[in-house]
Amino acid sequence: MNLFSFTLSTGKEGFYDITSMVNDAIQTTHTSRGICVIYTPHTTAAITINENADPDVQSDLIYALNKTYPDRPEFKHMEGNSAAHLKSSTIGCSETVIIDKGELLLGTWQGIYFCEFDGPRTRKFYVKIIKD
Amino acid sequence: MNLFSFTLSTGKEGFYDITSMVNDAIQTTHTSRGICVIYTPHTTAAITINENADPDVQSDLIYALNKTYPDRPEFKHMEGNSAAHLKSSTIGCSETVIIDKGELLLGTWQGIYFCEFDGPRTRKFYVKIIKD
Amino acid sequence: MNLFSFTLSTGKEGFYDITSMVNDAIQTTHTSRGICVIYTPHTTAAITINENADPDVQSDLIYALNKTYPDRPEFKHMEGNSAAHLKSSTIGCSETVIIDKGELLLGTWQGIYFCEFDGPRTRKFYVKIIKD
Repeated sequence: MNLFSFTLSTGKEGFYDITSMVNDAIQTTHTSRGICVIYTPHTTAAITINENADPDVQSDLIYALNKTYPDRPEFKHMEGNSAAHLKSSTIGCSETVIIDKGELLLGTWQGIYFCEFDGPRTRKFYVKIIKD
Repeated sequence: MNLFSFTLSTGKEGFYDITSMVNDAIQTTHTSRGICVIYTPHTTAAITINENADPDVQSDLIYALNKTYPDRPEFKHMEGNSAAHLKSSTIGCSETVIIDKGELLLGTWQGIYFCEFDGPRTRKFYVKIIKD
Repeated sequence: MNLFSFTLSTGKEGFYDITSMVNDAIQTTHTSRGICVIYTPHTTAAITINENADPDVQSDLIYALNKTYPDRPEFKHMEGNSAAHLKSSTIGCSETVIIDKGELLLGTWQGIYFCEFDGPRTRKFYVKIIKD
């Protein structure tokens, strides 16, 4: 099938490193070359790729996103989470990564992150593999 | 060919739900599994995926994008639409969606939107299908 | 292999037009139809698609990104480049473009840009082609 579904329990907000889960999917399918789409079906979450070494990068990103996209008194959406919807569209609900020699072709400092903007919730993401 | 072109008439700014048009392309090609790229060839528009239920989400997003990316007196581009160019690069000119069981694998609350940041105009977007 | 690696020398910050390099990769592989992923393995850089005509658009984008995502005294990451990491996640480290009739299916005014947010550095990006 080349399609995998993963579940995640999140806190109020945060970046969750899902790189090893994506790698597992690639190993399972014995894919040596192709691309891979990591996709979340939620509208107040996102997928991004960023530094995997210093956890301060993730907390700085969350801090700055909250400053850049604050809750605004003019928002009309009754659920009160419009800022989370905006972060989702800004960061984006998917990433596409190249697969080469049986592995994700990530940079040395790159990790794949699930971004929670309106938790805590049980969340899902998909990994779809397209082989060469 | 697995490539489709759609035309849209837009207002000054707004989010336009194009989910059913993308679904039609998938039905036409009888694709059961794969991925699908939705792409707009314009530089002051974008494609995003966000909530399809409450229209207040879309108006909140437009409101907040205008606050976050205002027109600035320092902008030099003579056409006067640099803020629209910035929104286009921030939201992005394409989305990639997984196809499974003959349908887009969207979340319950997800719709695919064409975002107009500098209308009114006649706009185009493409749907390209890659089958498994 | 359908996978190409390119190197780029960047300044402090800037948008670099890489469209012709991506087109060269497509010519080399004699791809008539498919998609193409342009991906950078760095966490303080990005790939975007925007106007290729007036260079003022690129300088306006850089100006506005610096205003929107300033360096903040609250940032904890010791390298001092958290703003560049945020710009990377906002613009995104890849773009997916459709290939048709042997060429990138770009809009008239669209060019593909490598975005440097924390140079000067020697940078890399990959082009991966998926044929129909």
